[in-house]
Amino acid sequence: MTDVLITGGRIVTAVDDYVGDILIRDGKIEAIARKLEVPSAQKYQASGLLVLPGGVDVHTHMESRQGIAETCDTYESGTRSAAFGGTTTIIDYAQQSKGESAIFALDNRLALAEPQVCVDYSFHLILTDINPEVLKELPDLINYDGVSSFKMFMAYPDILMVDDASIFKTMRAVGSHGGMVNLHAENGSVIQVLIEEALAQGNTSPKYHALTRPTIMEAEATHRAIRIAELAEIPVYIVHLSAKEALDVVVEARDRGIYAFAETCPHYLFLNIEEYDKPGFEAAKYVMTPPLREHHCQQALWRGLKFDDLQIVATDHCPFCFKENSSGWHRSKQVGKEDFSKIPNGAPGVELRLTLLYDGGVRTGKISLNRFVQLTATAPAKMFGLFPKKGTIAVGSDADIVLFDPNKEHILSAETHHSNVDYSLFEGRFITGKVEKVFLRGELIVDGDRWLGNKGKGQFQKRSASGTF
Amino acid sequence: MTDVLITGGRIVTAVDDYVGDILIRDGKIEAIARKLEVPSAQKYQASGLLVLPGGVDVHTHMESRQGIAETCDTYESGTRSAAFGGTTTIIDYAQQSKGESAIFALDNRLALAEPQVCVDYSFHLILTDINPEVLKELPDLINYDGVSSFKMFMAYPDILMVDDASIFKTMRAVGSHGGMVNLHAENGSVIQVLIEEALAQGNTSPKYHALTRPTIMEAEATHRAIRIAELAEIPVYIVHLSAKEALDVVVEARDRGIYAFAETCPHYLFLNIEEYDKPGFEAAKYVMTPPLREHHCQQALWRGLKFDDLQIVATDHCPFCFKENSSGWHRSKQVGKEDFSKIPNGAPGVELRLTLLYDGGVRTGKISLNRFVQLTATAPAKMFGLFPKKGTIAVGSDADIVLFDPNKEHILSAETHHSNVDYSLFEGRFITGKVEKVFLRGELIVDGDRWLGNKGKGQFQKRSASGTF
Amino acid sequence: MTDVLITGGRIVTAVDDYVGDILIRDGKIEAIARKLEVPSAQKYQASGLLVLPGGVDVHTHMESRQGIAETCDTYESGTRSAAFGGTTTIIDYAQQSKGESAIFALDNRLALAEPQVCVDYSFHLILTDINPEVLKELPDLINYDGVSSFKMFMAYPDILMVDDASIFKTMRAVGSHGGMVNLHAENGSVIQVLIEEALAQGNTSPKYHALTRPTIMEAEATHRAIRIAELAEIPVYIVHLSAKEALDVVVEARDRGIYAFAETCPHYLFLNIEEYDKPGFEAAKYVMTPPLREHHCQQALWRGLKFDDLQIVATDHCPFCFKENSSGWHRSKQVGKEDFSKIPNGAPGVELRLTLLYDGGVRTGKISLNRFVQLTATAPAKMFGLFPKKGTIAVGSDADIVLFDPNKEHILSAETHHSNVDYSLFEGRFITGKVEKVFLRGELIVDGDRWLGNKGKGQFQKRSASGTF
Amino acid sequence: MTDVLITGGRIVTAVDDYVGDILIRDGKIEAIARKLEVPSAQKYQASGLLVLPGGVDVHTHMESRQGIAETCDTYESGTRSAAFGGTTTIIDYAQQSKGESAIFALDNRLALAEPQVCVDYSFHLILTDINPEVLKELPDLINYDGVSSFKMFMAYPDILMVDDASIFKTMRAVGSHGGMVNLHAENGSVIQVLIEEALAQGNTSPKYHALTRPTIMEAEATHRAIRIAELAEIPVYIVHLSAKEALDVVVEARDRGIYAFAETCPHYLFLNIEEYDKPGFEAAKYVMTPPLREHHCQQALWRGLKFDDLQIVATDHCPFCFKENSSGWHRSKQVGKEDFSKIPNGAPGVELRLTLLYDGGVRTGKISLNRFVQLTATAPAKMFGLFPKKGTIAVGSDADIVLFDPNKEHILSAETHHSNVDYSLFEGRFITGKVEKVFLRGELIVDGDRWLGNKGKGQFQKRSASGTF
Repeated sequence: MTDVLITGGRIVTAVDDYVGDILIRDGKIEAIARKLEVPSAQKYQASGLLVLPGGVDVHTHMESRQGIAETCDTYESGTRSAAFGGTTTIIDYAQQSKGESAIFALDNRLALAEPQVCVDYSFHLILTDINPEVLKELPDLINYDGVSSFKMFMAYPDILMVDDASIFKTMRAVGSHGGMVNLHAENGSVIQVLIEEALAQGNTSPKYHALTRPTIMEAEATHRAIRIAELAEIPVYIVHLSAKEALDVVVEARDRGIYAFAETCPHYLFLNIEEYDKPGFEAAKYVMTPPLREHHCQQALWRGLKFDDLQIVATDHCPFCFKENSSGWHRSKQVGKEDFSKIPNGAPGVELRLTLLYDGGVRTGKISLNRFVQLTATAPAKMFGLFPKKGTIAVGSDADIVLFDPNKEHILSAETHHSNVDYSLFEGRFITGKVEKVFLRGELIVDGDRWLGNKGKGQFQKRSASGTF
Repeated sequence: MTDVLITGGRIVTAVDDYVGDILIRDGKIEAIARKLEVPSAQKYQASGLLVLPGGVDVHTHMESRQGIAETCDTYESGTRSAAFGGTTTIIDYAQQSKGESAIFALDNRLALAEPQVCVDYSFHLILTDINPEVLKELPDLINYDGVSSFKMFMAYPDILMVDDASIFKTMRAVGSHGGMVNLHAENGSVIQVLIEEALAQGNTSPKYHALTRPTIMEAEATHRAIRIAELAEIPVYIVHLSAKEALDVVVEARDRGIYAFAETCPHYLFLNIEEYDKPGFEAAKYVMTPPLREHHCQQALWRGLKFDDLQIVATDHCPFCFKENSSGWHRSKQVGKEDFSKIPNGAPGVELRLTLLYDGGVRTGKISLNRFVQLTATAPAKMFGLFPKKGTIAVGSDADIVLFDPNKEHILSAETHHSNVDYSLFEGRFITGKVEKVFLRGELIVDGDRWLGNKGKGQFQKRSASGTF
Repeated sequence: MTDVLITGGRIVTAVDDYVGDILIRDGKIEAIARKLEVPSAQKYQASGLLVLPGGVDVHTHMESRQGIAETCDTYESGTRSAAFGGTTTIIDYAQQSKGESAIFALDNRLALAEPQVCVDYSFHLILTDINPEVLKELPDLINYDGVSSFKMFMAYPDILMVDDASIFKTMRAVGSHGGMVNLHAENGSVIQVLIEEALAQGNTSPKYHALTRPTIMEAEATHRAIRIAELAEIPVYIVHLSAKEALDVVVEARDRGIYAFAETCPHYLFLNIEEYDKPGFEAAKYVMTPPLREHHCQQALWRGLKFDDLQIVATDHCPFCFKENSSGWHRSKQVGKEDFSKIPNGAPGVELRLTLLYDGGVRTGKISLNRFVQLTATAPAKMFGLFPKKGTIAVGSDADIVLFDPNKEHILSAETHHSNVDYSLFEGRFITGKVEKVFLRGELIVDGDRWLGNKGKGQFQKRSASGTF
Repeated sequence: MTDVLITGGRIVTAVDDYVGDILIRDGKIEAIARKLEVPSAQKYQASGLLVLPGGVDVHTHMESRQGIAETCDTYESGTRSAAFGGTTTIIDYAQQSKGESAIFALDNRLALAEPQVCVDYSFHLILTDINPEVLKELPDLINYDGVSSFKMFMAYPDILMVDDASIFKTMRAVGSHGGMVNLHAENGSVIQVLIEEALAQGNTSPKYHALTRPTIMEAEATHRAIRIAELAEIPVYIVHLSAKEALDVVVEARDRGIYAFAETCPHYLFLNIEEYDKPGFEAAKYVMTPPLREHHCQQALWRGLKFDDLQIVATDHCPFCFKENSSGWHRSKQVGKEDFSKIPNGAPGVELRLTLLYDGGVRTGKISLNRFVQLTATAPAKMFGLFPKKGTIAVGSDADIVLFDPNKEHILSAETHHSNVDYSLFEGRFITGKVEKVFLRGELIVDGDRWLGNKGKGQFQKRSASGTF
């Protein structure tokens, strides 16, 4: 493998910010210096560009079944889209079915993903059935398989929801081994009542997806998750936190010294509940869970990002096509045309995280450039046991590097993104700041609009302990 | 019925405090004046005594089955004990069995209690099975039967525990009719894991009852209850709040303008977790739920009582004999000799509420005399739709009156109390302040140590709306 | 003095609510009964009316000099206006000048007020100069003169403002004697900078009065006052609390068990900062301190009133005429025509408290009828050592009684009020609920629009300890 | 200047942690790599050692007059002591006297320090007299002199204390230029009353220093400082925060999105109020301001450090000798032998910060190694405009580097420290972890116990904006 030299860029990590040259050898960062001369190396000029650690997106759903629908990105298309967005590592999900072995679920998912993936990857393991056998598997999953995070749902009764005893038992089982539980925190039991009420009253349009998932029920479940973790004496991680009320609960816990962590997603930062007023079935594009919230929640989320009460921005990339396509059975949002509760929940976004957060966060002064890197790369890598291999630009780390043009203007559109999905949450949005080149372990896989990567080249990452901030 | 005249006492209500004479006619307060002359009336001199409204105890369990055990007070013995303690109205429980009609459960309980009761009474209705039929019954229970409060359990899985959807549905069903939900707020699901763990480790002694019911899980359920009520937009009432952590949750909600109400009990105010260190099986006497807490919780509870973050002191009188007696099957605490989880949960106290709270609260300066009346009579009556018939000394109200000697010294003991139970939580405690005479609707039923009342004379109270503070 | 009998009214106290007859003898409540027959008594039919304890207004400024201006109500006109509004006791202010004896200041003020007052009255003592001699006088003022409350200003540097050491010393000096310190809580030092800045920039209009007194500076001083009282271990009372931010500070302290009390005023409940947008000099009518606040503060204040985080509603009646009149020197709002900082600070309102709070609080369901009585009569009387003589309807209390027609509709206007002031903050407001008759110690002084009272008939009230809730 | 090569060490920054070689050229970091070969370079083997950025101590008082006493470290001895402790940059103080020009004060201090300093340095400017002339100087101080932080005292009335108007004016004057105000936050006015009371009662021993400076008064002033900054809309920095109550105030503000920053000091983390019970005058050694606090405050401070509610650990090195020495007039703690209020306030510690925090923070698991670097070097450098020159190990930064042996055991003692002061707060404490070598801009100035530096070699640092996190 030829050495690679990236010269003259503005290198930004979660703490540093300086101009220098980076030498990559064998896929790792070999040297950083004011000036490096390596005649044999392949050179890339980065003057005027930001040189960032490759993004780490810890929340994606590729090829994921949801009822009769399935997300429309394969591991190939989804990870290629990620790469174009400057994300070089994703943590996707393997899901244990009821009665199934968790290890078996992982192995199956690995077999599906391995030949396809274009960037490095790992899985959180979704647990849906906690029994003594599964509990016994968990330490092995952490210690041998390098899967140190387990997701459980407090929502979706009868499908994914587990009871509090299961959450507590899992926390107990994994905590001493460096495992951490991630929670989808909404009170599914109460929400189900609201959904049934809405449908009974003939309220079937997409907007009722939002109206039946109140912020208060997100706050409730967030509090419950944190209290159970507090009792188990291990950290806890809340996925896709969207509501001010839920954040308030996280803040209260942290103020008491509890290790409550949470991520939010770009759509909660840049969109709000008014999208559901769009005419016709258009609003279905915005049907994700939790739903978009009132505008004042955005201010709270930005404060949380600034003051480290929110630690990570992930995408929850969960793309369902808006229109039916020619595939054999229904997979699109149209499934829920007559009944909002049947709309596949989820929205695309894996490609837009860096560009959106740079444009709407850094450029507006809401967060600093260092914080931008921390939220999109360093903190996710540290939180989930990928650091220092991933998440930083430092000697010895994997050479996952993004050259980012801070002044390049472009317009977001489904026309130009690389996901299979047929719409964009941000169609037509004018943005300043764009990923120009992406290196995965020293290999240039994205160069402007050109795809230079290869499927199957992504490597599974055995992770060390999660939640050990 | 002859007129009754109580003269020269210091009349204390939740707000007033003055010396005067009270004329009782037809069981109601006819007149209050500086000096009343009614030659035909039966006269009682009350100089030097406090003249208080009869106590209202909104949390008792008479003749209550709990697994194979049953509380050892009948409606007769229990209400007689209440009367000796200055309580002239109790709200006990009727419990819907699974699959059963709630109205049927009420009728059954009424039939059992009616011939026995010695003081006025009502029932909260315990719901264990929420289905469309039961939900339809609830408005009638409120409007026709005068039962405006419904208790549900967040603890005791597989026995009493209901899910959050049931709580929410019930709140929705009763709220618009003036009904209120009372909650036993502990996370039973997680607690069950702790209990099983403890037993699996051979930790079978009574102390583990306390160690497996952590304050954090009371706080969790309290928060959940309040959030569900917040969503339903109706008040909520937390029974037997014991932990500072749970109170903090109530306070936070009230600070946001949420009508969260809570009661505590004398044993949480005067006893703490150290009781479980008593030798042998002695600690089983203190096995009630929630368990006794750390000492610092007491300070928090007193602050709550002072600042109205706690509104009511009730007893949760739930007496199980300590020793086996000759009855046909096991009903005593001894059932759990080998396994703390089998110890019948509950402790006696219906007779001691006023005397304990006066001695340990008023005399120590922790609460004022007016607040003492408010906590023991006025607030309970208002909270549960008994006011102004009950809970105050005002013209037109029922003449339920207690003459209380603020200087009388006595020693608490199972020897002298009037409950059937064979022990006292406060055995040997030296107390200043004692109930001297008790009038129920103008009739003298307690005179020092003499019982002048009659079983079956207590009247069922149809209550108006609950939670309408 | 002839007995008086008020029959058939709905008697409402801070806790009770019943129909009955009241017999008044020698100016005191002799008896309350379902039915009273006293042939010799002067009878008043009160069917359909509320029978309330006379209002207690603990914050008024009659004949009060402020720079070159003076409030336009004499003790006669001001207390007559109070009476028409259902207030039978006021606590006004005696003010120590720098270098002056506090006792001397009290005596002077007594001499001025005594021949004029139409309702019962007392004074808080404003201290402006804390020195060892004055500190020595304070216990005597409490114990002999019955003046148990002392007001100090954290605003108005060089005029009224005292430093923190003075506040602390005064708290120390009066606390053990049952005295309490009242504070005008605004950071006058910082506000002065803002005023000077505004004037320097040519911002001279009345609106700048509001813009230079930010809520944050009220919150700051409120916190400081409470912390100093916390250190001194005595209660503290914040006058005219207006801002949500200040209330938050009070709530936080109460949640920790600190006796922080606060009053708010009708204008903060019913008016907001938009009044300052009125054209011309009209806005000067609303120049009081603190100024009117943003609308969201009102919601916070109502929550505070409901949950007892605010204990009292007083008027801060401090009337300056809007127009110049014929008197010898400038006393009206016009003084500040060219410079908002010279506008006499204060607004009228002593007559409107009950009617406004009934119409806008009780009728809208924001507060209960009992709470209305507590806020306007009982709590003020208890807070400042006037209870049980004042503040309730109970046997033995002064027969200060208001007959209030809950259905009478009227329109507020300077045309019809009884203050000397030439404008009303609520001109043209349509109101339901009106004071019909007012008895002062059993004597009818207001009967509809007729004035039956006499100046000089108000009695000075020696008060017992303040702040002993 | 010869190149320097540090090889094989474990390089730790606020975010990274890896093994590598560092090449230093012209006093700056030229390159970092897995392996560097530079034959001409002076080599230092760092295997087994931590390679840390040189410490930045933003709170020291060298040659500082306090009444008749003066701190016993000259700029020479004090900065040498700092260097031995791994601190390569200090920010000391220049103090404006009343009536004096601030620029003049800075120039004078520079003249005193320049020939003596052994490490790099800057000054905060202490302002004691805010007048229009001084306010005009401040932008120049920031923009031309590189002094972007201004300290004011809310304590020490008549000596250093300024009023709230002065604080606010200064914040307004410096905020738009990137200046930040640092505050000594204690309510000096109230504390003065307590001191006078104590002395009047004959309580003259050192312990009364602590008893007269209650935590509540630190909390009060901290709140006031933050509120004033909130109004001025600029960040604020609280020096030497010691009390849980004060931290609570900071946390509350940060939870609302206010940029309130605070430092604490090693003595508050490792010592508590019990030190004042030492016999004789020994307790005078611990007389610093704020005083040592109750043990529970330490737990709160550690939580604050972990969750970034406290951002910096500085020493407040302010050494007064315990015993009199031969100098012309009294400079030691003995000055206050008969009167605690005369004891010079301050304690030594500039040399112990890294070793104490490593031993008691990192080794105990209270904070991570990255956080240790952030608290002692990176955050101070960023907070006060020294970054990226100081505070990190990154290409282009000054080569201020500490080689730290994480396993070296030693015992703290005045015998071995390098300050002039004659005692140690931590005499006899057993410590693991020690500074081995210190490089200042590439020059080895400390090598084990040997001093290789030179006075006058420290460079004044013109700083960029403060408080721009």
